[in-house]
Amino acid sequence: MCKRNKLCLEEGKEMDISNILFVSPMYKELQVLIKNEVPGKSFRFIPEEELTQDDLSWADALVSFNLKADYDYNSVKWVHSLGAGVDRFLYKKEWNNEILLTRTICSFGQRIAEYCLSYILKDLQFHDTFHEQQQKKKWEQRTPKLIGSQKVLVYGTGEIGQMIAKVFSGLGVNVYGVSLSGKEKKYFTEVIKLDSHFSRLNEMNYVINTLPLTEMTEKLFNSSIFNQLSYAGFINVGRGASVDEGALLQALNDGNARFAVLDVFAQEPLPEDHPFWSHPRVQVTPHISAVTTANEGALCFLETLKNIEENKLLINKVDTKKGY
Amino acid sequence: MCKRNKLCLEEGKEMDISNILFVSPMYKELQVLIKNEVPGKSFRFIPEEELTQDDLSWADALVSFNLKADYDYNSVKWVHSLGAGVDRFLYKKEWNNEILLTRTICSFGQRIAEYCLSYILKDLQFHDTFHEQQQKKKWEQRTPKLIGSQKVLVYGTGEIGQMIAKVFSGLGVNVYGVSLSGKEKKYFTEVIKLDSHFSRLNEMNYVINTLPLTEMTEKLFNSSIFNQLSYAGFINVGRGASVDEGALLQALNDGNARFAVLDVFAQEPLPEDHPFWSHPRVQVTPHISAVTTANEGALCFLETLKNIEENKLLINKVDTKKGY
Repeated sequence: MCKRNKLCLEEGKEMDISNILFVSPMYKELQVLIKNEVPGKSFRFIPEEELTQDDLSWADALVSFNLKADYDYNSVKWVHSLGAGVDRFLYKKEWNNEILLTRTICSFGQRIAEYCLSYILKDLQFHDTFHEQQQKKKWEQRTPKLIGSQKVLVYGTGEIGQMIAKVFSGLGVNVYGVSLSGKEKKYFTEVIKLDSHFSRLNEMNYVINTLPLTEMTEKLFNSSIFNQLSYAGFINVGRGASVDEGALLQALNDGNARFAVLDVFAQEPLPEDHPFWSHPRVQVTPHISAVTTANEGALCFLETLKNIEENKLLINKVDTKKGY
Repeated sequence: MCKRNKLCLEEGKEMDISNILFVSPMYKELQVLIKNEVPGKSFRFIPEEELTQDDLSWADALVSFNLKADYDYNSVKWVHSLGAGVDRFLYKKEWNNEILLTRTICSFGQRIAEYCLSYILKDLQFHDTFHEQQQKKKWEQRTPKLIGSQKVLVYGTGEIGQMIAKVFSGLGVNVYGVSLSGKEKKYFTEVIKLDSHFSRLNEMNYVINTLPLTEMTEKLFNSSIFNQLSYAGFINVGRGASVDEGALLQALNDGNARFAVLDVFAQEPLPEDHPFWSHPRVQVTPHISAVTTANEGALCFLETLKNIEENKLLINKVDTKKGY
């Protein structure tokens, strides 16, 4: 039984979940994966364009990537986000605090950690250099750098940041964290308070953003941060709107940022005329570092449902005031 | 005191090492790093082209990447290879068994593991796909694969193979080993005997060769192995002469091998007219996966000298009959 923890259901809020509504582009796959896993429930699986107010009035629980404007969600007791980011539910929106909000984080930490690791190793192992040399049939040695000699700074020390720290520290990397509180967390060499981290930026080889989009993190990565970097690699797996894109381009051109690997953008898909597409030191990926596959979405939903019904700790419960 | 282990000095073979000769292109860097670290020794640091028979007659110990023909090395008590591979000392050569041979393996396992990891993650994270899409300003999602879902087969379960297994198993990978004995080793899910491993090849996603060049491993990777692969990635960080290059090209064209990442070649530098340079699914790197930097060469030499003088276990002692 979950007790005295903000990740519990509130007292007296135990829920009876009978009718569950899935609204998602992958409704068919989810149906196959979930239908027979939970006896005694009624399900509806529909694509986003078929949602009606009647579905919402029927549902005790809604599982979706987002909410649609102009619908009344107030009779739903629990909303489960199929994504890890819940800005599409909360950012610049009003949330009814009677409704429990949970999110999919089950395998995201590992996925995002491997994404970041792949691009940092690509850099340390000089993949581009050797690829270019091969085009010219040129045999010229250059010694790759060991990852253990690098310093990596991770913004955000929650579930995802911590998994990055776990993977990287396992390879001997000193991983530094930045958080509002500066509270020490496992796998981090040191966690630094956001207020006082600016003077530490010039020692970092790589900087990774994992932060959710909230009013506090909107355009957090502006020239105040980029100007302090000393030829660092910047990776954004948080949210695009946390970056002042003009300031990042400036930092790339000034040499403060050596390269940027960007999986998220203020506007997605990234518009065709955006300068990121053609910048030689920007790698664009189409928001894939933490895709919810139907399989993982189903697993995480089933686990959360079980935890709710057994009134266990919900590690993926969203603090709707903080926004993550 | 080292006892009853083939990695000890033989009994009665305790040595008095006074005169130490370094013959290496990096003799200047080594001189700076080593000269004042060991009091009471005499040193000579020279480039390869200046070696004389007088130097060899003077030396108790020789530190070098290779031996030169037409010189008499028999008065030297200990030879320390600056490289990890000792085929340049032993392959198709006679070795005087009175002379102790050690090799530099100190950081090689980690270096080679990170090299392999970088190319496997590049593949799983679809770096090439996203790079090509970026050229076309195309936003199309594709979900990277988690490394923990992959099976990796490593030929060689010695120091280097084991370090690969350690790094990969730390990321949740099932790592299979191939060795002559099939003896179980830490970090490997399973070690398979070379004799009986052929039927297991089709389940592997990636195959890594770390084997030394000996008469047994020359052209070991021929069509008997490649024909069994099922669209696997092949990485060679062992020795080029262990691969039948024609058979590898055939396997790439037949689809048995999905790609090859090659750091070592039968002839190095790789000749300009070699088909590997221009094959779209071959990545050539110029023998850099385990470069001995002066710093690491010096560290490993100093550690080995200390172990010899204190008669401790020599984990980097070469079995000159086996050839590694």
